[in-house]
This record gives sequence, C-alpha cells and structure tokens, in this order.
Amino acid sequence: MNAIKDYVETHKERFLEELFDLIRIPSVSSKPEARRDMVRAADYIRESLLRAGADHAEVKETTGFPVVYGYKMIDQSLPTVLVYGHYDVQPAEPLDLWDSPPFEPVVRDGKIYARGADDDKGQLFMHLKAFEMMNATGTLPCNVKFMIEGEEEIGSPSLKQFCKENKQLLKADIILISDTTMIAQDIPSITVGLRGLSYLEVELTGPNRDLHSGLYGGAVGNPANLLAKMVASLTDENNRITIPGFYDDVLEVSDKERAEMAKAPFSLEEYKKALNIDEVVGESGYTTSERTGIRPSLDVNGIWSGYTGEGAKTILPSKAYAKISMRLVPNQDSGKIDQLFIRHLEQIAPAGTKIKIRSLHGGQGYVTPIEFPAYRAASRAIKESFGKAPIPVRSGGSIPIVSDFEEVLGIKSILMGFGLDSDAIHSPNENYPLFNFYKGIETIPLFYSYFVEEMS
Amino acid sequence: MNAIKDYVETHKERFLEELFDLIRIPSVSSKPEARRDMVRAADYIRESLLRAGADHAEVKETTGFPVVYGYKMIDQSLPTVLVYGHYDVQPAEPLDLWDSPPFEPVVRDGKIYARGADDDKGQLFMHLKAFEMMNATGTLPCNVKFMIEGEEEIGSPSLKQFCKENKQLLKADIILISDTTMIAQDIPSITVGLRGLSYLEVELTGPNRDLHSGLYGGAVGNPANLLAKMVASLTDENNRITIPGFYDDVLEVSDKERAEMAKAPFSLEEYKKALNIDEVVGESGYTTSERTGIRPSLDVNGIWSGYTGEGAKTILPSKAYAKISMRLVPNQDSGKIDQLFIRHLEQIAPAGTKIKIRSLHGGQGYVTPIEFPAYRAASRAIKESFGKAPIPVRSGGSIPIVSDFEEVLGIKSILMGFGLDSDAIHSPNENYPLFNFYKGIETIPLFYSYFVEEMS
Repeated sequence: MNAIKDYVETHKERFLEELFDLIRIPSVSSKPEARRDMVRAADYIRESLLRAGADHAEVKETTGFPVVYGYKMIDQSLPTVLVYGHYDVQPAEPLDLWDSPPFEPVVRDGKIYARGADDDKGQLFMHLKAFEMMNATGTLPCNVKFMIEGEEEIGSPSLKQFCKENKQLLKADIILISDTTMIAQDIPSITVGLRGLSYLEVELTGPNRDLHSGLYGGAVGNPANLLAKMVASLTDENNRITIPGFYDDVLEVSDKERAEMAKAPFSLEEYKKALNIDEVVGESGYTTSERTGIRPSLDVNGIWSGYTGEGAKTILPSKAYAKISMRLVPNQDSGKIDQLFIRHLEQIAPAGTKIKIRSLHGGQGYVTPIEFPAYRAASRAIKESFGKAPIPVRSGGSIPIVSDFEEVLGIKSILMGFGLDSDAIHSPNENYPLFNFYKGIETIPLFYSYFVEEMS
Repeated sequence: MNAIKDYVETHKERFLEELFDLIRIPSVSSKPEARRDMVRAADYIRESLLRAGADHAEVKETTGFPVVYGYKMIDQSLPTVLVYGHYDVQPAEPLDLWDSPPFEPVVRDGKIYARGADDDKGQLFMHLKAFEMMNATGTLPCNVKFMIEGEEEIGSPSLKQFCKENKQLLKADIILISDTTMIAQDIPSITVGLRGLSYLEVELTGPNRDLHSGLYGGAVGNPANLLAKMVASLTDENNRITIPGFYDDVLEVSDKERAEMAKAPFSLEEYKKALNIDEVVGESGYTTSERTGIRPSLDVNGIWSGYTGEGAKTILPSKAYAKISMRLVPNQDSGKIDQLFIRHLEQIAPAGTKIKIRSLHGGQGYVTPIEFPAYRAASRAIKESFGKAPIPVRSGGSIPIVSDFEEVLGIKSILMGFGLDSDAIHSPNENYPLFNFYKGIETIPLFYSYFVEEMS
C-alpha cells in the first residue's frame, strides 16, 4: 500500500497532465465530423497502454469508431481481468453554460472541470495509470486486457459485433468497469444492479383526417382521449403495471438484500425538495430507492396529438402518439416484455380506432451477486482505500452493453465506479474531484490482488 | 314570384360579375398586411348597398377591421330585418392544392370556384341582390338594415363592442344570417341550434426538470402518465362527462323535436365509411346526430409532453399539457362550465403535481325555437322556392356571435343558410353552386314577405 501511495505521490502531476492531453481531444461520438479526433483519441490510448507496459496494443477497426485493444499476459494459469471503458464523450453543448471551455481542462476547488473529466476519460485513465504503476513496481498479480470503445455515448452500436468476432481475444474471468458513481466520498458504494429497458412507440388512429370538433365532437372516437384512457389503464391505483404477465419473471429481492440496500443514506425530504414535489409517487409497499432499484416501472416519455400551438384550434385529431418505456429488473426479458406490451395494447385498443406499435429500443437488466468473488474483491479494495465497506446499490438506469457482455462473452462485470452524482456528466461544467481520481488509482491495484486471492 | 324569377333571369350575369369583383379582393382577415384589401372590400359592400337602393351606407371603424352598416327604412311601423354577414375570408393556403387560383373566380360544372365563393361572400351577396331586386320592383315589404363585418374568420373580436356602442342603430326584430349549410339541394334544412364552447388549456407540472427515466422512473410522479389519468377520468364508460354539475343546465329535448330531427336523412354506414372508422363512439342512449346536435361533448384538441422527436429519449418529463374543449348545448353557460372544469381538475390533480388551467375561448350555445315567427317565415319561403319544407337541424358547431347578438342587442337570429357540406369552405377549391346562389336570391324576398305576415 505504501509503495502505491508513494508512486502516486511522485507521479501525480504527470498523471494529470496526461489525462488533460486526452481530454483536449474533442472525441464527441455523436458528431460524424469528429472522426479524426476519434482516431486521435484511440491512438492516444493505444500509446498510453504501450508506455504503461502492455505487451501489445492496437486500434481495431469496427463498422463504427475503432476499439482500442491491448493486453499484458504474465501467466496463463493466473486469472485475467478485462478492463472496459470508453474514450468518446457527450457533446459539450450548450457551450454558453460552461464556466471554462469544455475541452480545456482546468482544476478549480480540487476538481477537474472538462467534458469527459469523469465520463469516462477520467475514470478510464485511472486504470491506465494503475496498470502502469503495477508494471513499474512489479506488483501486477494477474493478466490484464483492455477493450476501450468509442461509441458508448451513442449506444455502442458496433461493440456487440466486435465481441462476437473477438471472443478468443477477449477471454477473461471478469470485466472491470469504472463508469458509474458512488454515493459520496465518505460513503463508498458499488452498483450491483442495472435495470433493463423496453421502449416502444404507439400510434392510435381514429378518423382518417382531423375533424371539426364542433361538427363531430361527441359522435366520433377521439384518439387523444382514447389514448389517454389506454395509457391511464396501464397502471393501477397501487401504481402496479396492469399488463398481463408483466411481473411473471420479476424476482423478489431477499429481505437480507433489502436490509443491506436500506443502509444507503437517503433523505426523502431532500429528494422531494431537490425535485420541488410535495409527494413521491410509486408502487405501494416499496421505498423510493427500491422503486427505482429493484422494481420495474412504466413511464410515458412523450405524448402528442392534435393542435399544440398557441391559442384554440377546435379539431378532433386523427392520430395520437405516445412513447412509452418500461424499466425492467434482472430476469425480465426485454423482448418478451415488448411482446406482452404489444399484445395487451392491441387488445385494449377501443372500437373506432386502429393501433400501430413499434419497438424503438431495448436492453436486458443486469445484476452482480454480492457473494461473487469480484464483488468481494472490489468491496475489500474499497474498504481498504476508503476506510469504509461499500454499500451495494441497485441503480434504476441501464447499461445495455453489460448484459451483452454476459450474453456474448459469458463474462460477468463488476461496476467499480468512482464518480459522484455531483459530477454533472452529460451536462455543462462536468467535473471530477482529484480526490476520486487519485483514490481510484490506489484502489484498482488492491482489487487486482484481492481478486486473485478470491479466485484461488 | 314570377316578377322575382324574371328579374333574376334578366340580371343573372351581372349579379355573378359583381360577386366576382368582390371575390377578387383577397380580404383575408388573419393577415395583418391585408388591411388595404379589407378596406377595399368594405367599400365595395358599401357602394353595392347604395346602388341597390339603401337610404344610407357607411364604413364604420372598429378597434379591428371595419363594419359596413346601411339601411333602408320605409315605415317605422313595419318590422325591421337586420342582415348580418362577413366580407372577410379564410386564408387560401395551401395554394398548390387549388385547381384554379383562389382569388380568380371561375365557373366549372355549374359551381363558382374561389375562396369566399360560399363563405361568406357568395351567401352575403345573395342578400345584396335580393335587396336590390325588392327595391327595383317596389316589393320591399319592411325595413332592412345591414351589418357586414370583416373579422368573422378570426373570431369577431370587435363585433360585440360594436354592437354595444350601436344598439340604437341596430334595433331590429330579427337578425337574418346566411352563413350555414342545408343538407342537400333537394333536402333543404334550417340550422336551429348551435352548440356553445368552453376551451381550456391544462398545464400539469411534476418534477422541476426533465429527469432520467431510468434513475427516477417508478419513484416520481410522471405528469404525462398522470395527465392521461386525469383526462381519461373526465368521461365514463357510457361516454358521459364526469365533471360534477356538468349536466345540471342541459335541457332534455322533447320527443317531438327528436322525432322531427330524426327525419333528416342519415346513413351511419356512409358516415363511418367516409371517416374510415369501424365504430362510432358517443354517449349511450343517443343517435349520432343527437350526440352532436343536442348533447354536450368533451374533446382533447391537443396534448403534448416530453420527447416527441425521432427515436428513443429516456426522459421523465417535467410538464404535460392538454387543450380540452367542451361543446355545450343551449342553456349551459360557458363561463359556469369553465369554472366547473377548473374546480374539478384542481381537485383531481394528483399528489406530486401542480396544475395551472386557463380558459382560451368560449361562447354560448344558441337555439331558434321552431314555433318562432322568423322560423315559420323561413320555412314557408324555402318550401315555396325549393318545393319542399326544410328540416330543422341542430349543428354541433358554434357561432358565438349569434348568442352575443341575443345578449347585447336582445335580438334572435335565423340561420337561413344556402351552403352545402361539399362547398369545401376553409379548404382548397372552395365552391358554391350557381343553383344555390340564384335559389337563395329567390328565397330571400319570400322570407321578407312571410316574416311581415307572421309578425302582423
């Protein structure tokens, strides 16, 4: 531990300067004109890997932006850790809301301010520096591989195929990812669950054209009124989803795990105050954290029909639309839920209407069992470096690629994230505390050691 | 009758040319740049009135576009008919859907094609020519006044005030309006009822910003889901409106009048086919014609919330909006219904939300009793000129100015319209059959004679 701390202390300025060089490359994957910058960022990662001591590193082409692949194999009989991260970032717009230019990183009040400072250049770079450190100090206890992609912020469209084509190269015992948050610097946590997603669009058609609401109102089914009735019927008075079969595959979480999760600090008053709402609304019998962590949900993400401009236009619209998404818990299958949703909505579509439904997006949920060697290793590492055992947390969000890794490669992931909610990822003034950056670099080698121990 | 027919026969070409001159002025009241054309159209009406034999005619300024006022008083002891019409027209756009230019009137297949051919220049001009004819043949049986406005197509914003300021000038026994339709050339009808209107906009606010639907979905009230529930609850399984007190002032229509209305030809199969719907949807216990004619209704005219673009954006929206209008039957008060609606929606707004509601538009319903002298006169006139007694029809639409006339001036209106549903008013290729134009000119003097008879 002291050797690690010494190495960090000696090289901390250089670590930061190297990260800043990576951040200065505006590798915004949603902008097609950024291709040159994407390749520059990928090359920078490749060179960093080689300088840090990788046996091999290369920029591998995909159908989209390239993936950086590299490794150091020290002994085939030892476990292998596959580090995943991404070098692409979100767009920086709106630029006028930034206090300093997004691609000119600066340190203010102990935090790095820049696009990508946390997500994911900052978190990814901790792994490169931890790797360098273990190589430099001769303490690397296992084999390591790296897969750093450039399309995470646009939904990783090429990565699943990349995994399919490179199964042998990617063989590993665990995938280690730092792309999530912990509760606070003094309340470390590990994300052990992610929700899946079914996202569909409904189009309900009534009459074949917009009608005069005076001449026809009361006699012709209005698709806006009728879609409202359909949407309203999808949840009951206990805020449970009414689609037949929807809960069939939901696994109840054990009282023990619920008790463990309940240890995470949470103030309902502060939550409501931050959102300026007088009440929370959710499924009866569950706490707010459980409603997003271990229970599925159904939300209208968008709804539109008829006249939405200024003033009063008296039409009875021909069509009404809704985008509806369901967050799923692990063991619920996104494809099956799509089918249940479609079948149910087709059944309840009222007389006088026609319905069309299409799936827009989906992904499976994911859970890391807390009895798992990688979880125990991460927990021990964090306890040692932060001085406190981390709390296992189920996040309401989705990282579809994690379940893809399990499906395609047959490898579980551990989400050892060092970000904070206050890092403003995807927003102006994204930042990452230096404390978290350096603490992460210290924690990662500990994970490697404990993982080898847990696996042996 | 023969004298009238002869006069029409002799002058029919000139009548048409004069109407065409009026139509050529693009008096589109919704375009502020049309002010010069509005004044030209008003002047043209004023001159036509004087040439037709008016004692006096003038263009009177209002806070908006001017009103043309004129009269011929032959004997204070005789009844006075006040003719209302409007010289403004709807915009002609989309221009590329017209088969001939909208402001260059042409006759094709026995119909005048142009913007305003029916609504209301064509129908209004019948009154000017009937007036000319009665003066020329010495057959005018009563006093006549004219009030021709230029803002009907934008909701008559200045006319109520104009009426208040000119009560004495506008004194009359009946207001005669040709701005509605009849069922068919061989099935004449008279509109005896119009529905009133309450049109409001609802804004439901949940959290103070759009949230990530993964991180918050299931725990925070989603205003799009909740507004759908609120809208859905406004009508019950019999399609009756659930707002407490809503039906209190609705007068049941007598079985006799329902039987009379049921004589109007109506094919439910053709109605459904024309709208491409497999079922009609409306209040239990009433026919389709009754649902729009004598019963109130509630329609969502527009609804919007969240993400409505392409693809999948996983937000839990902060706000949801709906424009909701209710068509009211005579005796329901638009202001009272606004209040009932607002109070009810405020009461059912769920915990976790804030609601704002504002009234956008309103107007009272109107009914012409079929026992009324003006109705009997119109019925006799149409029976004589069309060879068939007209059917009294209640229209689902609203002409708010008609109830304003009753409120401000204390004068009832008779809606002796000669348009057809196929005239495509407000649409490309608006048209008006020459048959209806000339038949109207013949019918109007008959109305005057019978009205004097009925009033004496």
